[in-house]
Amino acid sequence: MSEEQTSPFGDAVLSRLAEVIESRLPANGGDPAKSYVAKLSAKGLDAVLKKVGEEAVEVVMAAKDGARDKVIYEVADLWFHSLVALAQFGLHPSDVLAELARREGLSGLEEFAQRTQNKG
Amino acid sequence: MSEEQTSPFGDAVLSRLAEVIESRLPANGGDPAKSYVAKLSAKGLDAVLKKVGEEAVEVVMAAKDGARDKVIYEVADLWFHSLVALAQFGLHPSDVLAELARREGLSGLEEFAQRTQNKG
Amino acid sequence: MSEEQTSPFGDAVLSRLAEVIESRLPANGGDPAKSYVAKLSAKGLDAVLKKVGEEAVEVVMAAKDGARDKVIYEVADLWFHSLVALAQFGLHPSDVLAELARREGLSGLEEFAQRTQNKG
Amino acid sequence: MSEEQTSPFGDAVLSRLAEVIESRLPANGGDPAKSYVAKLSAKGLDAVLKKVGEEAVEVVMAAKDGARDKVIYEVADLWFHSLVALAQFGLHPSDVLAELARREGLSGLEEFAQRTQNKG
Repeated sequence: MSEEQTSPFGDAVLSRLAEVIESRLPANGGDPAKSYVAKLSAKGLDAVLKKVGEEAVEVVMAAKDGARDKVIYEVADLWFHSLVALAQFGLHPSDVLAELARREGLSGLEEFAQRTQNKG
Repeated sequence: MSEEQTSPFGDAVLSRLAEVIESRLPANGGDPAKSYVAKLSAKGLDAVLKKVGEEAVEVVMAAKDGARDKVIYEVADLWFHSLVALAQFGLHPSDVLAELARREGLSGLEEFAQRTQNKG
Repeated sequence: MSEEQTSPFGDAVLSRLAEVIESRLPANGGDPAKSYVAKLSAKGLDAVLKKVGEEAVEVVMAAKDGARDKVIYEVADLWFHSLVALAQFGLHPSDVLAELARREGLSGLEEFAQRTQNKG
Repeated sequence: MSEEQTSPFGDAVLSRLAEVIESRLPANGGDPAKSYVAKLSAKGLDAVLKKVGEEAVEVVMAAKDGARDKVIYEVADLWFHSLVALAQFGLHPSDVLAELARREGLSGLEEFAQRTQNKG
């Protein structure tokens, strides 16, 4: 598989976004007056989590509209705010990707399925 | 920073997951009796979207618990089900990453901030 | 049964709120410049639904905080925005209460349980 | 306004539901093998909250479908699980109705609007 082909940005996007987000945290000198991430983070964890929930609902609505462009746009918003949430805990997208790879590596996705169905 | 260093899986994970998910869609011969993705997709779009909303709530609860491992785990679930949702529209993670890169490329993240704050 | 005892406001609150909300709909002359309900409704159905999702997340967070006052407050917000959503369809709280009574009347709550567990 | 007219069940429904729910809590002898509420509550607070989030998403999807019957049905589910969540804290629907009445009494709904818009 050629990663370059499917995604010239690839993981670089998530990593780079995570770096930018981290640099904008108030603890790292981010200025709430200039940066959205700084402003949101300064409001506290609940404000960040509220956005995660909100963007999930927007994904749902875009999908119900059958609007492909909006789906892309809203999933981007959801992933972006997921990264902001991760940053509140000093976590990086690579932590999440490693978890996804771990599941995948064990047995395709069967292990994931098993686990998810059992927790339902 | 070396991207290879922080993420040996990198975009490969999202791309590979997306490929696996795509191959498990009922339209592509996925068997609901064997595959979680096939089973979920066979239930219809609403079932998939319900999972996106559900996993977002689980991210929120894990974060409120301050449980870093659970946060990783639940964000992985959220991203996984985002990929399943994208697949219902023939969309790929690269579409989302391209959108995120586009925003980033324009002006760091300021454009994103602007847009998000205005729509609030 | 003494309704006055458990709730001097009782259903009167939901009914009265629903009446006020209905009167504030743009279609009924509500002014977005003066009324929150008019302003929210004027933004369209998605804006109303987004609030329903958002308030549900706030209930979750308040409950995770173990903050009883906030739980009351956020459930009030959630129910309020449920009423606004109902109003977009010309529906009233009595429609929802009738549905709940119907379930209850059949067999306590067992029928509800059955149905809910099966749909999981 | 005739309350009896718009809602013969009225607050009685919410109060009665709350009573039934309370009696089904494991702490009050509810049997997880027989009662949905007992079973759900026995799983812990997160399970209850997850349902609140899930039902909110179902309200959103029903509304996007423009399906009035489903909207009624899903709002009933949402309110029902709100009551189950309240019960985890020893709270009653009358607490929420009192909060709604308090807001309403102050100045119609303007106070509510003010507050909500400011927190956005």
